[in-house]
Amino acid sequence: MTLSKKTPKESQVIKTELVLPNDTNTFNNLMGGRLLHLMDICSAICAQRHSGSVVVTASVDNVSFSQPIALGEVVNMKATVTRAFKSSMEVFIEVTAEDAPGGVLKPSNSAYFTFVAVGDDNKPRPVPEVEPETEEEKAQHAGALRRRQLRLVLAGRMKPDEAKELKSIFFDE
Amino acid sequence: MTLSKKTPKESQVIKTELVLPNDTNTFNNLMGGRLLHLMDICSAICAQRHSGSVVVTASVDNVSFSQPIALGEVVNMKATVTRAFKSSMEVFIEVTAEDAPGGVLKPSNSAYFTFVAVGDDNKPRPVPEVEPETEEEKAQHAGALRRRQLRLVLAGRMKPDEAKELKSIFFDE
Amino acid sequence: MTLSKKTPKESQVIKTELVLPNDTNTFNNLMGGRLLHLMDICSAICAQRHSGSVVVTASVDNVSFSQPIALGEVVNMKATVTRAFKSSMEVFIEVTAEDAPGGVLKPSNSAYFTFVAVGDDNKPRPVPEVEPETEEEKAQHAGALRRRQLRLVLAGRMKPDEAKELKSIFFDE
Amino acid sequence: MTLSKKTPKESQVIKTELVLPNDTNTFNNLMGGRLLHLMDICSAICAQRHSGSVVVTASVDNVSFSQPIALGEVVNMKATVTRAFKSSMEVFIEVTAEDAPGGVLKPSNSAYFTFVAVGDDNKPRPVPEVEPETEEEKAQHAGALRRRQLRLVLAGRMKPDEAKELKSIFFDE
Amino acid sequence: MTLSKKTPKESQVIKTELVLPNDTNTFNNLMGGRLLHLMDICSAICAQRHSGSVVVTASVDNVSFSQPIALGEVVNMKATVTRAFKSSMEVFIEVTAEDAPGGVLKPSNSAYFTFVAVGDDNKPRPVPEVEPETEEEKAQHAGALRRRQLRLVLAGRMKPDEAKELKSIFFDE
Amino acid sequence: MTLSKKTPKESQVIKTELVLPNDTNTFNNLMGGRLLHLMDICSAICAQRHSGSVVVTASVDNVSFSQPIALGEVVNMKATVTRAFKSSMEVFIEVTAEDAPGGVLKPSNSAYFTFVAVGDDNKPRPVPEVEPETEEEKAQHAGALRRRQLRLVLAGRMKPDEAKELKSIFFDE
Repeated sequence: MTLSKKTPKESQVIKTELVLPNDTNTFNNLMGGRLLHLMDICSAICAQRHSGSVVVTASVDNVSFSQPIALGEVVNMKATVTRAFKSSMEVFIEVTAEDAPGGVLKPSNSAYFTFVAVGDDNKPRPVPEVEPETEEEKAQHAGALRRRQLRLVLAGRMKPDEAKELKSIFFDE
Repeated sequence: MTLSKKTPKESQVIKTELVLPNDTNTFNNLMGGRLLHLMDICSAICAQRHSGSVVVTASVDNVSFSQPIALGEVVNMKATVTRAFKSSMEVFIEVTAEDAPGGVLKPSNSAYFTFVAVGDDNKPRPVPEVEPETEEEKAQHAGALRRRQLRLVLAGRMKPDEAKELKSIFFDE
Repeated sequence: MTLSKKTPKESQVIKTELVLPNDTNTFNNLMGGRLLHLMDICSAICAQRHSGSVVVTASVDNVSFSQPIALGEVVNMKATVTRAFKSSMEVFIEVTAEDAPGGVLKPSNSAYFTFVAVGDDNKPRPVPEVEPETEEEKAQHAGALRRRQLRLVLAGRMKPDEAKELKSIFFDE
Repeated sequence: MTLSKKTPKESQVIKTELVLPNDTNTFNNLMGGRLLHLMDICSAICAQRHSGSVVVTASVDNVSFSQPIALGEVVNMKATVTRAFKSSMEVFIEVTAEDAPGGVLKPSNSAYFTFVAVGDDNKPRPVPEVEPETEEEKAQHAGALRRRQLRLVLAGRMKPDEAKELKSIFFDE
Repeated sequence: MTLSKKTPKESQVIKTELVLPNDTNTFNNLMGGRLLHLMDICSAICAQRHSGSVVVTASVDNVSFSQPIALGEVVNMKATVTRAFKSSMEVFIEVTAEDAPGGVLKPSNSAYFTFVAVGDDNKPRPVPEVEPETEEEKAQHAGALRRRQLRLVLAGRMKPDEAKELKSIFFDE
Repeated sequence: MTLSKKTPKESQVIKTELVLPNDTNTFNNLMGGRLLHLMDICSAICAQRHSGSVVVTASVDNVSFSQPIALGEVVNMKATVTRAFKSSMEVFIEVTAEDAPGGVLKPSNSAYFTFVAVGDDNKPRPVPEVEPETEEEKAQHAGALRRRQLRLVLAGRMKPDEAKELKSIFFDE
């Protein structure tokens, strides 16, 4: 059986949250770990929609936190699947902070989560391929190979010499 | 100073949630009260965006709960402002439940929340008018008058005889 | 088998809560949605006691929020069953806010929740009739018919012309 | 200025809770520590009402947990002030577990909490004396002296020889 | 079958927590009941490790709260098993509050929790004896007999006359 | 003023957690995002202790999740500072899952968090250097340079050609 391809649009997830007191640190700003928790849930729903399957988080790539998000501000998250690898999927999630009364939007951060689709037998099961449509989706789809190699190298599961796609980040030929 | 009108699209909010264990009753279904809590937050963000102001919840109209939403299912909420009344706004929120792995969507329920915009002086402050664009938005904008009269009658602040718009619900001539 | 009638007193529930930080909005006041969540739990316990059965929330009528309840204040809730309809019950819940150190009580709001009793087979099951004792209980019992018709009309399940009890609200003959 | 006495009835607090998933251990029973948390809040509201003041928890006496309270069951708490000591108060709290659908009540446990009333200057402030009315209230009022001595002995703040009231527990003359 | 003895060190648990907004009272200090909740979890993990079994909380002895722990401060907990009694264990837990940025440590409070080990048949099952090593562990091990008698007397399950170990607290001859 | 160096041991944090229902996904396993939240708090306490200052999360490196951690299991976290860079610190956190009744320990995952120390003026402030003592601490201290370059390259703030330390990961000459 071949699974038919699906576009990123079909599984995109938008999640909007209000920063409440218990989400904040002593500066009254959203804690980084709490934001990661929200991003994981948003991305996982996206991976569930794409795979038509329950999923588990396999990894999250390097995440930087730039501007603080204050108590009472709104967190806008958008999760989009970028590429599938047999039974796993990479999901890109962008976060924007919003001072809703003031109408000010400020880019906050972004991350790549990887999920594995799991069947009723508790084992990985195949997921549909991703068919990118827009220019941005195509760029994300292409870059997913490099990011996957970096993950494998960092996890000690691929020798750096074999990471051909990854080298192009560093020696951009 | 006149506030310029804003369309419903400008302030629309989409909020996607995963039903977690603590949200559920003894049937492992989302509790009605917990859903109302999530709907209030989603609608309030919409009212904040429309008014450019902090808001407080003034009322919620009759809400019916039809199909249960199970643990692990996804709750899709979409909040849209329908009409403004000086310093208050009516927001319509639609809820759809989704069995994400199964890809099944089931309409769940909907509600009308009313919010008051509040200024730094802690007093109500004027909000922009709503400019409906689509047919559905226009119908919601028109119906808001009737719903407002029903609220006032139920709260004992308007005599039924004066509720001309409301009568048209019952004697739809 | 006939279920014996039960009085409202037998199932009345009192629930007292302290407003904690995560319950509040940016004004440090209890959020409307959080209050609805607490009211739903309190009313559901009342319906469980009356029906001797597990219950699910079917609807909540129009709720208005008047005075804000501040962080650290006490929320007093009292839930009383008003009338039973085969397998459903209407519960009236009154909320009073209390500045406990100051000893000041301020009426806050009230609502009517409707619950359905559910049996082991996951289907609705009959509930005992309500036998009102006090004048107030009798008035609530009588008014329950009108409120039920309004719910059915608003849900599009009854034609306004047939809502005889309801008309008396508007044309008070 | 002399504070007028107040009866236990004037400050009694009833708090009813539903056991939710996050309150439970791996046996699906309410965790002892979570119950202590709820009992502390309920008792503190009682002490606030009696003292007309903000309060802080000073101590809790020995608490035994007998029968487990299951997920979905109802926890009934009743807190009653027993005696005041200058700026502190002892509050007695009784807990009953209830299988609400089944209508079965089972005594669960009880505890004595002690609270100190605190003024705007962050210092202890005097509280009204307690005027017991019923036989049970009078017995609790009398026993409070013994319990207080036991607390002081256990905290190393009173020599056992001086604990005259306490000795009567052990040598019941 | 005889269970081999285990030292307190083998099951010791360290738990470090940050005081978050929802843990605090109106003074922005950690609520006593919330602290008891955390202490119960920390002690229960210790009892699980010692017994190699699931455990339930049987009791907590008198706990005094001295210095307040503020929002944003760190709570350091250390739980150590002191003695086993057939299928139950006493666990001693010490709490220190820490102003982490300031580097200041302040002793906060301590408590004795008792847990019962429970088997798959839902019945109490035997636990290994405790083999104290240090002087402090030996003193705690010896004192456990007195504390157990006090618990039994307070619970009305032992006559004061029979509590020989306990008397030594009060009449330390 | 020169800050005196501090060893990793002086600020090490151990945090032990029990997996509760609300932390879990539909497989009854700890959600990846919730684990990241706990790891962020544990690491932040470590960075506070090292810097004697309030801190904010700047980034987290690639995290892989291997074995699932089940409901009721224990999460052991150990956070150790590896190196300081002016006003920022890298913290290494190791996570072990424990089936406490069964006494089985299974390595789970690990991560590097980076924190910035912040002064009362809300600006970055200098932190003490890290003086590694053990072999492992020295290896972590040395590796921190490479990991920092990778972070800067990934964030587009350093050209790959300049990342001399980083190249040694890939071309390990």
